[in-house]
Amino acid sequence: MADSDGQRLQEVLDGRWAHVRRAAREQLGGSHFVTVQGESLEQARERITRLLRELPTDPGVAAGFPSEYGGSSDPGASVVSAEMLAHIDLSLMVKAGVQWGLFGGAVTALGTERHHAAYLRRILDAELLGCFAMTETGHGSDVQQLRTTCVYDPETETFDLHTPHEAARKDYIGNAARDGRMAVVFAQLITQGKRYGVHAWLVPIRDEDGTPLPGVTIGDDGHKAGLLGVDNGRLSFTHVRVPREVLLDRYGQVAPDGTYTSSIANDTRRFFTMLGTLVRGRVVVGGSASSAAKSALTIAVRYGEARRQFTAPGQDREVVLNDYLAHQRALLVPLATTYALHFAQEELVTALHEVQTSDSPPEDHRQRELESRAAGLKAAQTWHATRTIQACREACGGAGYLAENRLPGLKADTDVFTTFEGDNTVLLQLVAKGLLTGYRDAFGSLDGWGRATFVAEQVRSLVLERTAARALIQRLVSAVPGRDEDVALTDRGWHVRMFEDREKHLLEGAIRRLRKGSGFAAFNDVQDHVLKAASAHIDRVVLEAFVAAVDRAPGVPLLSKVCDLYALSVIEADKGWFLEHQRLTPARSKAVTAKVNDLLQQLRPHLRTLVDGFGIPDEWLDAAILREEAARQDVMAAHDAPGAAATATNLEVAPA
Amino acid sequence: MADSDGQRLQEVLDGRWAHVRRAAREQLGGSHFVTVQGESLEQARERITRLLRELPTDPGVAAGFPSEYGGSSDPGASVVSAEMLAHIDLSLMVKAGVQWGLFGGAVTALGTERHHAAYLRRILDAELLGCFAMTETGHGSDVQQLRTTCVYDPETETFDLHTPHEAARKDYIGNAARDGRMAVVFAQLITQGKRYGVHAWLVPIRDEDGTPLPGVTIGDDGHKAGLLGVDNGRLSFTHVRVPREVLLDRYGQVAPDGTYTSSIANDTRRFFTMLGTLVRGRVVVGGSASSAAKSALTIAVRYGEARRQFTAPGQDREVVLNDYLAHQRALLVPLATTYALHFAQEELVTALHEVQTSDSPPEDHRQRELESRAAGLKAAQTWHATRTIQACREACGGAGYLAENRLPGLKADTDVFTTFEGDNTVLLQLVAKGLLTGYRDAFGSLDGWGRATFVAEQVRSLVLERTAARALIQRLVSAVPGRDEDVALTDRGWHVRMFEDREKHLLEGAIRRLRKGSGFAAFNDVQDHVLKAASAHIDRVVLEAFVAAVDRAPGVPLLSKVCDLYALSVIEADKGWFLEHQRLTPARSKAVTAKVNDLLQQLRPHLRTLVDGFGIPDEWLDAAILREEAARQDVMAAHDAPGAAATATNLEVAPA
Repeated sequence: MADSDGQRLQEVLDGRWAHVRRAAREQLGGSHFVTVQGESLEQARERITRLLRELPTDPGVAAGFPSEYGGSSDPGASVVSAEMLAHIDLSLMVKAGVQWGLFGGAVTALGTERHHAAYLRRILDAELLGCFAMTETGHGSDVQQLRTTCVYDPETETFDLHTPHEAARKDYIGNAARDGRMAVVFAQLITQGKRYGVHAWLVPIRDEDGTPLPGVTIGDDGHKAGLLGVDNGRLSFTHVRVPREVLLDRYGQVAPDGTYTSSIANDTRRFFTMLGTLVRGRVVVGGSASSAAKSALTIAVRYGEARRQFTAPGQDREVVLNDYLAHQRALLVPLATTYALHFAQEELVTALHEVQTSDSPPEDHRQRELESRAAGLKAAQTWHATRTIQACREACGGAGYLAENRLPGLKADTDVFTTFEGDNTVLLQLVAKGLLTGYRDAFGSLDGWGRATFVAEQVRSLVLERTAARALIQRLVSAVPGRDEDVALTDRGWHVRMFEDREKHLLEGAIRRLRKGSGFAAFNDVQDHVLKAASAHIDRVVLEAFVAAVDRAPGVPLLSKVCDLYALSVIEADKGWFLEHQRLTPARSKAVTAKVNDLLQQLRPHLRTLVDGFGIPDEWLDAAILREEAARQDVMAAHDAPGAAATATNLEVAPA
Repeated sequence: MADSDGQRLQEVLDGRWAHVRRAAREQLGGSHFVTVQGESLEQARERITRLLRELPTDPGVAAGFPSEYGGSSDPGASVVSAEMLAHIDLSLMVKAGVQWGLFGGAVTALGTERHHAAYLRRILDAELLGCFAMTETGHGSDVQQLRTTCVYDPETETFDLHTPHEAARKDYIGNAARDGRMAVVFAQLITQGKRYGVHAWLVPIRDEDGTPLPGVTIGDDGHKAGLLGVDNGRLSFTHVRVPREVLLDRYGQVAPDGTYTSSIANDTRRFFTMLGTLVRGRVVVGGSASSAAKSALTIAVRYGEARRQFTAPGQDREVVLNDYLAHQRALLVPLATTYALHFAQEELVTALHEVQTSDSPPEDHRQRELESRAAGLKAAQTWHATRTIQACREACGGAGYLAENRLPGLKADTDVFTTFEGDNTVLLQLVAKGLLTGYRDAFGSLDGWGRATFVAEQVRSLVLERTAARALIQRLVSAVPGRDEDVALTDRGWHVRMFEDREKHLLEGAIRRLRKGSGFAAFNDVQDHVLKAASAHIDRVVLEAFVAAVDRAPGVPLLSKVCDLYALSVIEADKGWFLEHQRLTPARSKAVTAKVNDLLQQLRPHLRTLVDGFGIPDEWLDAAILREEAARQDVMAAHDAPGAAATATNLEVAPA
């Protein structure tokens, strides 16, 4: 493959926000922003805060803010810009995410004009650094049950913000331990003796000099596995008086006399509406995790192109790591998945952008769909990144364990992504709930739930309704000839049908099982089944995004093979299910494995091209092995006496 | 279950070297040795070196050395002692392993009496700190191909030790960057113009003050993902003259005139014999990885007993994490595997102990068997630890990401275990090679290789021959009634038969496929198949060790259920293979999953007892969440108004 293939791939991958990616490569190039190894906690925090203050000139930062306050109202660009920052330094990306995404995002989405006018410019300029104080030590995933209270007192026209006990302290809060001057604090709103659920207040926590304000106790979460540059900490409040005006009151207002009003009467619905406006955080985390996976794959693949190990019988030079099937299984399969997730992420960013830039408020089902996709793809991408970076680390052996080769940092920094911005297991449950709720909404009033054929038919249309690139997918599926056994293993329609069938069957089964019982035990018995249904759903969403991307780029045949590898590797990984449910015969199941190996062989010569397609500048990758490897290999080739390789090695099955 | 169950479990797990485990709990208790978070590289190295110098009084250290030089010649005890140290601080364990296991071990095993007399006491006392300089930047797994040369010069009666190019520098060498004064250096021995393969020399690298000696260039590997207390570095030699006498010449001698002699004529065989004497390092790494997994599981399980999340409909208090099926799948299944690996490791330590304390040199096949088990169990235990600690980290959410809760350290420190002391994939290949070589040894001379029935029969007897607790296992397998479908899913004989069948079938298939071709391509096409055969072999070895342990402890019925869970979870995880090869019907495959869930429910009440069985003192676990959790939960229970829980949560399938 010529270089032009790499360029074409990069164009396809750069996608709709290519200009944002190009700008980042140009403006954040050089060594100024790249990550530094071996810093102390204090050094890392100091450096990241300093760099953060240089970022407001980056167009990506402004993209998240309304035009009235110096922003450019381009949520899609703001996500893509964060994805690019994640290639450079994950602490910087997270710190920026805390400042502009979470803190600034909450003021924008939950506040009203007086809050915007008073604070948004200072937040955008990084003049005012702030926290997003939602999670508590005792409540992370179940935000609705937060224990911090904020009780309105009409006498003084202030709220009383209070942490009732140790487990109710705010925990893991970025910008809290060192830099934050204000915090968006989430607490239970109580007025006139009645609870109205979780709301948010914009609360000063430190004075100009950085001293905690009276009643505010600030702790430091100290050393973490990674993200040393982010100052996570703990906040507790002892009857802190906050003015009525600092309630971020877009969705719920308290009048001077304490009367509560809201355009959304139901507390739970209001709460989820508020949370829904903050969906961008999850989209950023998922995309950033994929960026880290791309960086790791680029490093490991390039190292594996140069490093040699063991001499095969009859050969002079040792075998290049990437030539081993086991190495290809370790790197190329995750690489294909990374491509697939990239296209799914881009579709998600587009959906987010369209919902959030629409003139009218989003329709309920579009917002729900967006939240479900964001949850599912966040879980899929962060777990994928954790596994993939680990595989890349191992694929580089001892070199992969050295900080100078970047992989340890990528691993440690992204590790928390699987549990922050929503624990992945809880997010999968959210996806499942969305699917099942959609089902109930459509058929809740019918008596005929039990009629199996009817259920099956309805689940099918529900599933299909949720599809992107619907017409294309439908055409592909309809074109699959007759029985599975006769269909080519690379038939795209067959891939989609296999993914759809699995999702549909799992969903139907989950519904049937859930309807048999009630209470915790009944739910719990089905939990693994429900989570698997959610995973199957996400797999299909991802495949369909990849299928649509292949269709958009007919001039890049390589992409279609990568899509084949993705689809078949998912089927192979879950062949137990497909065999159990007679979607695969034993013979065809074995053929799938053979085809995966065949595709690995076909794609092997293009490995380097495939990672080059990510378009990550070398200075961002910043791995010593990449700088040294080319030179070293030349020297080794010159020094290696061919005769030295003639002894028996581990490659041979039976040495003398 | 009463506390006595925990005690009985601990007795069974403490096993043959219970006295060593008890002594460690008593002598290394308190906070003196426990790991410290957030140190700089220099602080960590300083502390670990200081603690290392206090350890020689520990009986476990002396256990690895011959009695003549202050040791107690108890290799089993030395391994178990290292496993205990791994609970406390993995840097300390690795540093001790470098000093006494690798450096001291190489002098003991490869040197002769004059080396022993001159150095062993000073090594044991940590007066002389040293390196094990085997790995090079360009050659790790393929040690036979090391590029460093050591050429004998009869004129001066010295060797010329030389690093020919950058990729031949010694790399990742513990004790090199800071502390080492000498190094056992592995290099190609050349004398009288002829190469005799890799040998080892005991070479001074620094003077008393720590200054590198002339011709010795020392580099620092700097920051690593973990193990900050171990000073890994790089060594290069520029024509360093070393005296003839420092060749560790147990297996190969060079006379003053340069004549080479050895009791083992074949270079390759001599090389593998030398390596074979160093097998203890792998056994220690595998066991230490399991120690880290046990620590992580204890922390996560105890956290999961206290932490609550989401209120189930109709309940007042939130649900304890450990009550969720998904949480049980995440923690209890790896816990069962950890039990299984523990017993397999103990069997391996016993085998090592018996081979290395025998009066006569080990028979070839016993030594080979030991090396194969050590390789296989090292790979299995280190991969298991990496996955399990990750799962534990995620199971503790944000708390699991804080250094104060120990999980980040356990993860980062053990991460390299999957690739050091032998890359796991290469080790699996070694296991496969052992199986295939054993096969060839038995039938190599026959023409009838192709006769399928014969091959099948012979593979079966070969497989069975390698079994521990042979009579017991045979009895169990023979007692399995008729067809699989009629056998209870918890029938132990059926478990063993399933494991054996899979191994045998995979091995036969690999042999058939390998015999069809030759050269690298043919080998490479089968690589995934060969690796799977090796994994299946290890799984069986592990199951049989567990079965034997259950048999030894008839008074602990809990153990039998844990063994069921282990066996069935392995079958479930590979159900794709069993279905493909008609060892499971679809219906029975689904029943396996149901049975695993059923066992999780049965074992749920005993989760705490199961981790208590590991007998890890709280001060070693050293996790803030364990100290805080009990108190915090009491407070929360008192503060939680039951009414607060009545709103809808994520647990419900369809909120209003």
